Amino acid sequence: MPLIQNNIPEPTLRRLPWYLAYAKLMLQRGETHISSTQIARDIAVDASRVAKDLSYINLQGRTRVGYQIDTLIEVLNEFLGFTHNHHAVLFGVGSLGAALLQDSGLKQFGLDIVAGYDIKYELDGMRINNVPIHHIDAFADLQRKMSVPIGIITVPVDKAQDVANMMVDNGIRAIWNFTPFRIHVPDNIVVQNTSIYAHLAVMFNRLGE
Amino acid sequence: MPLIQNNIPEPTLRRLPWYLAYAKLMLQRGETHISSTQIARDIAVDASRVAKDLSYINLQGRTRVGYQIDTLIEVLNEFLGFTHNHHAVLFGVGSLGAALLQDSGLKQFGLDIVAGYDIKYELDGMRINNVPIHHIDAFADLQRKMSVPIGIITVPVDKAQDVANMMVDNGIRAIWNFTPFRIHVPDNIVVQNTSIYAHLAVMFNRLGE
Repeated sequence: MPLIQNNIPEPTLRRLPWYLAYAKLMLQRGETHISSTQIARDIAVDASRVAKDLSYINLQGRTRVGYQIDTLIEVLNEFLGFTHNHHAVLFGVGSLGAALLQDSGLKQFGLDIVAGYDIKYELDGMRINNVPIHHIDAFADLQRKMSVPIGIITVPVDKAQDVANMMVDNGIRAIWNFTPFRIHVPDNIVVQNTSIYAHLAVMFNRLGE
Repeated sequence: MPLIQNNIPEPTLRRLPWYLAYAKLMLQRGETHISSTQIARDIAVDASRVAKDLSYINLQGRTRVGYQIDTLIEVLNEFLGFTHNHHAVLFGVGSLGAALLQDSGLKQFGLDIVAGYDIKYELDGMRINNVPIHHIDAFADLQRKMSVPIGIITVPVDKAQDVANMMVDNGIRAIWNFTPFRIHVPDNIVVQNTSIYAHLAVMFNRLGE
């Protein structure tokens, strides 16, 4: 089980994977130790922020010459939950949903999508990257047996709230919402919004095309 | 051409697609007008923030009963650059890269990936979702002919900086970085970081598993 501290600020949680990626790179390059100053310089984050971020995790590997890289990687991986296998279901096996089912990177980071659901009857019984696809009507029954904690939403915007409601009603405790629709859920439900198309808007604007 | 104002704060640019998604939903439901108060209530953003965000765009559709929805959608779509066709190349046709090539949602939001590049010779000459894949060595020559402005990075972390350098050297002006590595680029290059795995870390932590 990863060491969990629920009081960690979200920006810190989002930066820790940067340090992990950087540490892995340094290990590949044959380094054994890195300091927070070096991390800060190479990834352009303020040094005091790096040190503060890393203070949230229980790091034994700190020496006079900095953090021992292999320990840092191990502790970060575990702390971030990447070594634990988290089951998830995905609703909406369209273009983006099918793409996510095919991304094996998610599994490497601890997310194991165990089923896909869609309203299209013709998808029922298919497998994508070995993940079984079911009709959405089968969800309540299957969920009673499997108690999957995480739900991924890749349905069209106008179905996002209905799907979120169905997830919450059936015991889903965390929702990863890929639609640009802001879903309403009870306070005890964890929501992460990843609207990749919103990033496009920023890029297009800054590009000034 | 979309109306571009480069002084728009990034948080505003990221919220505008929420309003667009919401407006499309209301249109589908047969509504003709929406107020910023209504938007604010339904997507849980402060009403004054919605009004401020929308003040950045040149909206003619405002009446006593709020914004005219069809105008709001049209103006937001154009303002955000979603109606314009932006060419992009993608480096790293692995699991995530291939998944992005297959996501037709990107094209609907104005991003047209015209080529994929990879170091694997066996991928050279393939097509994924009708996008041609080339060996990375062909990039400089092809880029001279095509002058593609946007580069997408889905390579392994240890190759991210090399690929970013190659993109910048060959005239790419905006980089969409899907790796958790913080690339270094000149100040005039636009960078958007979308590390979807970092969102997993937040979700796992909040879920408390």
